[in-house]
Amino acid sequence: MRIREATAADWPAIWPFLRTIVAEGETYTYPRDMDEPTARRIWMLEPPGRTVVAVDEGADGGESGVVLGTAKMNPNHMGGASHIAGASFMVDPARGRKGVGRALGEHVLEWAVEEGYRAMQFNAVVETNTRAVALWKSLGFEIVATLEEGFLHPRHGYVGLHIMYQRF
Amino acid sequence: MRIREATAADWPAIWPFLRTIVAEGETYTYPRDMDEPTARRIWMLEPPGRTVVAVDEGADGGESGVVLGTAKMNPNHMGGASHIAGASFMVDPARGRKGVGRALGEHVLEWAVEEGYRAMQFNAVVETNTRAVALWKSLGFEIVATLEEGFLHPRHGYVGLHIMYQRF
Repeated sequence: MRIREATAADWPAIWPFLRTIVAEGETYTYPRDMDEPTARRIWMLEPPGRTVVAVDEGADGGESGVVLGTAKMNPNHMGGASHIAGASFMVDPARGRKGVGRALGEHVLEWAVEEGYRAMQFNAVVETNTRAVALWKSLGFEIVATLEEGFLHPRHGYVGLHIMYQRF
Repeated sequence: MRIREATAADWPAIWPFLRTIVAEGETYTYPRDMDEPTARRIWMLEPPGRTVVAVDEGADGGESGVVLGTAKMNPNHMGGASHIAGASFMVDPARGRKGVGRALGEHVLEWAVEEGYRAMQFNAVVETNTRAVALWKSLGFEIVATLEEGFLHPRHGYVGLHIMYQRF
């Protein structure tokens, strides 16, 4: 697996699994019927934001071109709090459980440190998304708050929405 | 004091004190040098957001036209968390300490309840802004988290950034 900058040419590979994840409505606070132009605008960031893809490597170590997942990263606040970064992640459900989320998380943290951010904040981690919560904890994040009944889950009803944070 | 919808005609009265508060950089996570078009775009909201002004009343109970303060209110998240409202407040420092902030806070909470929101979240309340913190607590908000060193204060250096929340 290799992580590299996402280009416009990657979007057709990102959109199918991003759409599926958003439509399921279980893990992200996006409108479940978000259309493609909106999704593209939200996901494919310009500086100071940045979007990357994790791509499969062939047996020869070259890139197979298969996009396994993607992450976007950006300042999470402006002005006096612009030293706090934010990030979001989407891993193709058909290709996950291979450490793709962890590799993207590590990459995003390295980027934030290199760019001079002093902290990273996740604004909205659904508490029933226990795999993600465990992954972020293992990468140094703490749950600093849970917004009670902050998320309407399509199967579980109102559940908590975690805010996760770590300083570097 | 009366609270009513802000119109384009109110902006010239809002901008001078909003600019002053933003330039001081002590209470808001906006760029301190934010220009007028950006400020106007951020502050003067279209539905589903809404912006109001608090205006002085003359001795006869009529409106004097003097803008004392302003508030904007909006969904704080999308999708499965769109039942959480957010809001921001600016009170003219030359005209504050007359209950303007409290009146705007009460108004915004009433609006959120009427509109069917189930909670309100403030994303970034600077911990040294103790008057605001005390006011929001008195209106039912709790500090659910403090992002340590989340805000670079021009006089105090890095201070905490509170996230405040209340369910209805």
